[in-house]
Amino acid sequence: MIKTIGVIGGGQLARMMIAPAVELGISLKVLAEHDDSSAKLAATAVGDYTEYETLRQFAATVDVITFDHEHVPLALLEKLEAEGINVQPASSALTFAQNKLFMRKRLTELGLPVPDWAEVNSAQDLEKFLNEHDGVAVLKTPTGGYDGKGVMIVKSVAEAANWLALGNALLVEEKVDFVRELAQLSARNSSGQWASWHVVQTVQKDGVCSEVYSPAPNADVTSPAILAKRIAEGLGVTGVLAVEMFETPDGRLLINELAMRPHNSGHFSIEGSVTSQFEQHLRAVANLPLGDTSPTVPFSVMLNLLGVDEENTFVEHLPEALKVQGAHVHTYGKSARKGRKMGHITALSDISIEEARLIALKAKEALLA
Amino acid sequence: MIKTIGVIGGGQLARMMIAPAVELGISLKVLAEHDDSSAKLAATAVGDYTEYETLRQFAATVDVITFDHEHVPLALLEKLEAEGINVQPASSALTFAQNKLFMRKRLTELGLPVPDWAEVNSAQDLEKFLNEHDGVAVLKTPTGGYDGKGVMIVKSVAEAANWLALGNALLVEEKVDFVRELAQLSARNSSGQWASWHVVQTVQKDGVCSEVYSPAPNADVTSPAILAKRIAEGLGVTGVLAVEMFETPDGRLLINELAMRPHNSGHFSIEGSVTSQFEQHLRAVANLPLGDTSPTVPFSVMLNLLGVDEENTFVEHLPEALKVQGAHVHTYGKSARKGRKMGHITALSDISIEEARLIALKAKEALLA
Repeated sequence: MIKTIGVIGGGQLARMMIAPAVELGISLKVLAEHDDSSAKLAATAVGDYTEYETLRQFAATVDVITFDHEHVPLALLEKLEAEGINVQPASSALTFAQNKLFMRKRLTELGLPVPDWAEVNSAQDLEKFLNEHDGVAVLKTPTGGYDGKGVMIVKSVAEAANWLALGNALLVEEKVDFVRELAQLSARNSSGQWASWHVVQTVQKDGVCSEVYSPAPNADVTSPAILAKRIAEGLGVTGVLAVEMFETPDGRLLINELAMRPHNSGHFSIEGSVTSQFEQHLRAVANLPLGDTSPTVPFSVMLNLLGVDEENTFVEHLPEALKVQGAHVHTYGKSARKGRKMGHITALSDISIEEARLIALKAKEALLA
Repeated sequence: MIKTIGVIGGGQLARMMIAPAVELGISLKVLAEHDDSSAKLAATAVGDYTEYETLRQFAATVDVITFDHEHVPLALLEKLEAEGINVQPASSALTFAQNKLFMRKRLTELGLPVPDWAEVNSAQDLEKFLNEHDGVAVLKTPTGGYDGKGVMIVKSVAEAANWLALGNALLVEEKVDFVRELAQLSARNSSGQWASWHVVQTVQKDGVCSEVYSPAPNADVTSPAILAKRIAEGLGVTGVLAVEMFETPDGRLLINELAMRPHNSGHFSIEGSVTSQFEQHLRAVANLPLGDTSPTVPFSVMLNLLGVDEENTFVEHLPEALKVQGAHVHTYGKSARKGRKMGHITALSDISIEEARLIALKAKEALLA
């Protein structure tokens, strides 16, 4: 039985694992990037996750290693595994979350629906793809991108000159004409037990998740879950898996991104599901039985709180925001910075997504006042 | 705006304040009794809460002081208050939770329903009370008792000889003929805002809370709430207030004990209420607006997990217990000891108290296996 879980990375995802760890009586230890991390309460080590010795020493204090982000160099994780360290999800799965080219290749091999894509190693490759796709495409760096970073819409090779000059392989994809974006959250433990939540709709603003509606209104709830299960099993994922998808005008689903950790699209589950994604991730990586993913209330809406300036951490405005009954305000203990994910609000409703959204918006307005 | 809350005492009540503090982005600091306290994750100081200097130094690191228990000497709290430290609940209220004689006097002054009682300073006092109450009474030490300790049923002065010999005033009460025990949980912030949960039924075993049913079946929900409000206001309580009551065969309510902190009878509220007693306590002592106390699901049952031996911390049996869908297992990170409060289970039901109880019992059996 796993009694201590180690999380690499001290961001808000690690922070939100603290509550379920305390509840279950599982010890949570965090390897944080700096002393004032969002998850500092559970930080037992501060160091550089790109240094093998730092990782090894931290791993020696826990029963299993998991992640707040996907930036730990794969070679280091493979080395830890070779030394017998329990890493969940394993490097063999994480490689597909870290490298979008590998992910596209593997999903294509599995026969799963993805946008048209190609590997780009030269201006010629890009030129060819643009010609085949009405002169517009989405160019991505295979590694390191997040929240809209490492993604560029290109209409000519010239626009991509800087990235091409780096000499690394790039991923190019068709610019999908979609009606909306969906995310399918699920989890799988090391014994292979798998459980999913209802598919949600995500609204992005400037490449960053802004709102999440659970469940996605008028969505087919079965197809996204089946896709997610095929991915979780096909890639050997343990822990929470978020599958971001495009829904096309003709109702097809195309897989966009994968994350193998709790995900912004699942924050609603803290209040909106019997088992939150954070508790489920701990259960899954500790190979405990997965919890009930039923909704607690029919409708949930999550709004992100993005930093507005270098002052407002949102905590200052709690007295006003907490007057809004039914809104659950979460702040991440971060110093203020414009555009930074500083917290989120979840509101629930028995009646409709619209009602939940109005409650959440009211609290958000109070926090921005 | 209060940004840091200090809790004196590192038991499970302080531990369960960690999750809502993290959620709200309020910093929680705990003065623990020892290094391996239940709330050690939030412990920023370890020391003796009966030493003024320890309290003063801890208080200097927080914006407000509150409590995991009622054992801090009142004189020290008064001294902290005189130095300008914000103590919630204030010593002027806490005195009634610390001293049962003061509590009985004050409730009687307020015209609130309490069992017949008297102050006992001699064998003669006790003899007189016994004679007036059919030769049986409940004798209590005014301070320091908890979980059935400091309480004795006496039928003769001789049985009380040891306590009388100590020379301290004792409290004697009629042995109430009750059909069941109820507890009314509520909270009040420093601005005077007050909110209550539905009254619950508590089941005690050997003087220790064993089960809690929320709401109390077939109970008048208004009268207990009115009593609690009169107590909270009459005694100037801030934070969570638990009022334990006897229900008599003729339907009267008699106030038994008071606690001015989160209470075992309110653990159900973590899952069973929109706002848990732990979040509400933080809001109240920080003078934030109180949260919605509506039930999330109509019926909740809480079962305590009492230590069975020196080995079983219950965490070992999580893999079996977590298979029981709908049961929420909480363990407190304590070393095992027979009779110790090691954790609790809450189960919810849309249908009945009975169903919730069966789910919780199933998980409890798995943990005891």
